[in-house]
Amino acid sequence: MASVSVPGMRLAGISAHAPAQVWSNVKVAARLRLARIQRDAQLRRERGHGLTGDEAREFTTSDRWVRRFIGFTERRFSENGEGTIDLATAAARRLLESTDCAPADVDGILFASVTPSYLYSPPDAALLQERLGIPLVQGGLPRETRAADVSLACSSWVAALMLAYALIRSGMARNLLLVGADRMSATINWRDRSFATVLGDAGTATLCTAVPAEEDWFAPAQFWSWLDGGSADIIRTPVGGSRHPLRTCEDLENARHCLAMDGRAVREVLVPFVGGPAIQAALAKAGWPLDSLDLVALHEANLVLNESIVGSWRKRGFRGEVLSAGGRFGNTTSASIPLALALNPAALATGRRFGLFGFGGGLSASFAFGTIRHPLEVAASVD
Amino acid sequence: MASVSVPGMRLAGISAHAPAQVWSNVKVAARLRLARIQRDAQLRRERGHGLTGDEAREFTTSDRWVRRFIGFTERRFSENGEGTIDLATAAARRLLESTDCAPADVDGILFASVTPSYLYSPPDAALLQERLGIPLVQGGLPRETRAADVSLACSSWVAALMLAYALIRSGMARNLLLVGADRMSATINWRDRSFATVLGDAGTATLCTAVPAEEDWFAPAQFWSWLDGGSADIIRTPVGGSRHPLRTCEDLENARHCLAMDGRAVREVLVPFVGGPAIQAALAKAGWPLDSLDLVALHEANLVLNESIVGSWRKRGFRGEVLSAGGRFGNTTSASIPLALALNPAALATGRRFGLFGFGGGLSASFAFGTIRHPLEVAASVD
Repeated sequence: MASVSVPGMRLAGISAHAPAQVWSNVKVAARLRLARIQRDAQLRRERGHGLTGDEAREFTTSDRWVRRFIGFTERRFSENGEGTIDLATAAARRLLESTDCAPADVDGILFASVTPSYLYSPPDAALLQERLGIPLVQGGLPRETRAADVSLACSSWVAALMLAYALIRSGMARNLLLVGADRMSATINWRDRSFATVLGDAGTATLCTAVPAEEDWFAPAQFWSWLDGGSADIIRTPVGGSRHPLRTCEDLENARHCLAMDGRAVREVLVPFVGGPAIQAALAKAGWPLDSLDLVALHEANLVLNESIVGSWRKRGFRGEVLSAGGRFGNTTSASIPLALALNPAALATGRRFGLFGFGGGLSASFAFGTIRHPLEVAASVD
Repeated sequence: MASVSVPGMRLAGISAHAPAQVWSNVKVAARLRLARIQRDAQLRRERGHGLTGDEAREFTTSDRWVRRFIGFTERRFSENGEGTIDLATAAARRLLESTDCAPADVDGILFASVTPSYLYSPPDAALLQERLGIPLVQGGLPRETRAADVSLACSSWVAALMLAYALIRSGMARNLLLVGADRMSATINWRDRSFATVLGDAGTATLCTAVPAEEDWFAPAQFWSWLDGGSADIIRTPVGGSRHPLRTCEDLENARHCLAMDGRAVREVLVPFVGGPAIQAALAKAGWPLDSLDLVALHEANLVLNESIVGSWRKRGFRGEVLSAGGRFGNTTSASIPLALALNPAALATGRRFGLFGFGGGLSASFAFGTIRHPLEVAASVD
């Protein structure tokens, strides 16, 4: 094989944006209650009797329950007509300002999301080019902008970070805009508390920049990914994809095109897996001991379950800090990990070793380990 | 920068699968006619008069028209209940057989598609892990499988090929399964001839394998990508994404969650762009003259427009062969380019230089140039 110089990658900046509309647990519980009353009245008309006790339970929650079993206090929802692209644009504009990066310096966009602004076309990466004013022409010819929309359920952002590293390390890009954004509120079935109590909307943008190899924050062995399609049913949208297209008003009314979850299976399968064998395999590949991690950020699907995962790690020697969004933004899927980083700028000190852990639907997991070797610009607009 | 050995990439095999159900132009025209009659009757009830002449025209086509202006004779549609994953699985199984690659040898899946089998979750890459029996455990630990679902409208497959190259060249993968598959029939609005006359279903799988650098088929400069979100409206799905979620039966009945196209704008914007400045910029980056290309495959959205693009290239010195699916499979989006390769095995001879051209919604374009340096296994099950 030929020998060539290969660059490393740093994160030059991270920014996060959350919409202004706050939904407390109380408001979510009230919205579910309203849906229950409507559904009950509908069933009385249709079948002569209302919801059974079991059926009614799917609509029932409380602030106390959500705080205790999920650890969330509130989340943000986008306004009508605002999609994932709007969340991403706000975060990306802020990132370019804070890092003093001109649109003309961006040579690629990786857009991690499970809630594309539009089905099929146009891709969000293209919309972002226009929103940011990334130039169309350079030197009299169409200007190159590398691009892809990337999706891997709750592991989307770390998977896209891995692809950003591959593009930079292979010399194919030098200044990538990595977006992690999701308008999860668009996927909520208000007849099912399981996801209604957890999902939220946020956008993030991270600037991934080439650096000399000796300043690399990462290494190829410091990324780890995993798939288990045998448990795909645990987090699933029954109708609306190419396998079962949405064709009937009945499916629409029953929200079969919305996301559904088997909460118990998540708890019983994914939590012990991430708490044990997954981190063991990933650290073995990286050659890092668990006690070398100064800080970690886990996909924030459920803070109580994350505490249980971190508890397992602590028993095995983990002594680092755990960054999170503190249950104030809900499960923002592709935004959750960079949001946790952006909200905790003081923790991101040079020299610290971090672990980033995406896991969820698929099932899938995507982990990354790195060392902060440069100061980074962190900006959050979440008020 | 440190010097390290970097591998190159070859395509070890390509396979394609199309479903058995053939839809001729005549059958498509009849299906549109049925939709017209139904819509006419509905409007008579709702507003007292049927379709106007202009409205009726959107349902009207003929075998002769489609052959003349699109160049397609037929396409394949999946059966009900079959989604993109089913097309991909058939192609991937065939690929593993023909290349003698065991599931345990696959270290990653890049799944290019605009029609995910399920919205939001599970990702198709995870479903494919299970379908192919890629092992879950290795050496007593969870086995690593790198993964991402990748989407960039009609440029998805070449964008994913670029990511495959980045992963292999950066030493992060050695044996990647690159899927290009779309069940486009799930996106058709039968009240609009513009896409109804062109879309089709197919799945493909390509094995991307690390080779010594001197045997590399590609180089970083041989990939080129472009975005223009300012023309995003040309190919667009009005409702159903996170920006405008599908909420009403009216939108469902009016198929506002289906793909729509401004055919004239595609012709006027995209065709001259790909025919001129885009290929010029891409070849300038690669340092390749146009007359060095022995064979090309263009995204098969419209064979007549592709002829016009190739006509422009010929005027500038292109003398190579044009591979296509010959209008027999429709516009299969992420499958179209590898399908054209798989259907023309005799053209894929060692030593030949090729160009692959994805372009479409976004707008987006993603091109790749390479040299065939090894024999490759080509398999197609399209009967």
